[in-house]
Amino acid sequence: MATHLFKAFFEADNVLVTQVFGPDKAKLKIFSEKTQTTDSYDNLSEADVYLICVKDDVIEEVASKIPFQHKLIAHTSGSLPLLNPKDHPTSRNGVFYPLQTFSKHTEVDFKSIPICLEADDKHNYQLLKTLAEAISEKNYNISTAQRKSLHLAAVFACNFTNYMYRIGEEICKENHVPFDILHALITETARKATLDSPSKIQTGPAIRDDKKTIETHLNQLENSDFKEIYILLTRKIRLLSSKRKNKEEM
Amino acid sequence: MATHLFKAFFEADNVLVTQVFGPDKAKLKIFSEKTQTTDSYDNLSEADVYLICVKDDVIEEVASKIPFQHKLIAHTSGSLPLLNPKDHPTSRNGVFYPLQTFSKHTEVDFKSIPICLEADDKHNYQLLKTLAEAISEKNYNISTAQRKSLHLAAVFACNFTNYMYRIGEEICKENHVPFDILHALITETARKATLDSPSKIQTGPAIRDDKKTIETHLNQLENSDFKEIYILLTRKIRLLSSKRKNKEEM
Repeated sequence: MATHLFKAFFEADNVLVTQVFGPDKAKLKIFSEKTQTTDSYDNLSEADVYLICVKDDVIEEVASKIPFQHKLIAHTSGSLPLLNPKDHPTSRNGVFYPLQTFSKHTEVDFKSIPICLEADDKHNYQLLKTLAEAISEKNYNISTAQRKSLHLAAVFACNFTNYMYRIGEEICKENHVPFDILHALITETARKATLDSPSKIQTGPAIRDDKKTIETHLNQLENSDFKEIYILLTRKIRLLSSKRKNKEEM
Repeated sequence: MATHLFKAFFEADNVLVTQVFGPDKAKLKIFSEKTQTTDSYDNLSEADVYLICVKDDVIEEVASKIPFQHKLIAHTSGSLPLLNPKDHPTSRNGVFYPLQTFSKHTEVDFKSIPICLEADDKHNYQLLKTLAEAISEKNYNISTAQRKSLHLAAVFACNFTNYMYRIGEEICKENHVPFDILHALITETARKATLDSPSKIQTGPAIRDDKKTIETHLNQLENSDFKEIYILLTRKIRLLSSKRKNKEEM
């Protein structure tokens, strides 16, 4: 996250990245060609905003070590609330949460990434909004409760989805079929979900209640984990289908 | 499927769509401005290839009603084998299976859709390959067994994936968050799966074995169906994670 955010801000016209802090000197190297870096809280520079891009369980600790008062400190966590003002009485608090899946070696186009913002007052919110607008075309005012629900929704839409791809890949491998053949389908399935509500475009044997195909698939599935998942998801999708039918009949 | 295939072939330079057959006159209307149509087997035109784009359980019936001999008949099903030569002694048989999710009202770019081909001899295969190349950049020689496994893999990579999106959408709705915020994540998750193996890029609390986040999510989930799915998929992904650890330790 830090690497991607740095890159986006570095390229933005109206934002100056004064310094990058991190405890591991080796990891600071990639930033050091472009800006100041430090691994010591004592050498932290003064700045308008401090963005904390660390794991959830060390955010509090990092925030409490920033040696300046009345500065805006924003974390980038999907699941944590604003810092508790009781614990951080001399700071101003915000959240700057880009909702995206980041990997170190894949470039991302920040422009299309929605940034969820929250702050303890209007002025601080505006400052975060300015930052967000410098790197992305989309920002949203999102409360902690909403952000937590987005984080949970993202587990389904991203983490579990990737696991579905992984099962597809495994089935291809077992049958000596290149996984590439599924790429177009994966891309199109995602594209459709951004054009229409996924609840309206469910396809496949489960929603059609196509018992014959479902039975064939269950016979094909040798991996018991995949079979268990197929059975559960098919059952849940069929529930939707029968709910829909009941509604239509009413 | 028929509509999309027609459109692609109609626009191709070296393919002539002689006629479209269908039992429902009203549904033939959209084709009738551009080619001959008929709802009667008696009026079927002679052609080099007959493409059957109907549900699996009526393919046999439609094929048996084609009143010409020694013509190449290809179905477009993901799960059925070549027509049985005993039942169709006077026809030549093939499969022309574009692996994609089609919906009536969404345009698709056929060029990127992989077409899985199978035929009862080399000459017939070559004829189907020529057809495939006229509309798509990708075609594969795929046996019935491989095609069946692709069809099953597609249930995970497309149907179940869309269901994951649907759950994400539902969670957003319940929490008054626009589902749009997840669009960039959905698109990027799909893109990453086409750049690297999904087995290598699994992210999220389950693979990290982040018990605290998993517990928070389970407390958030009010819908018992979604909870059951979260629990099962998390358990399965954690199994992968522990298998990986065991391997690394060895």
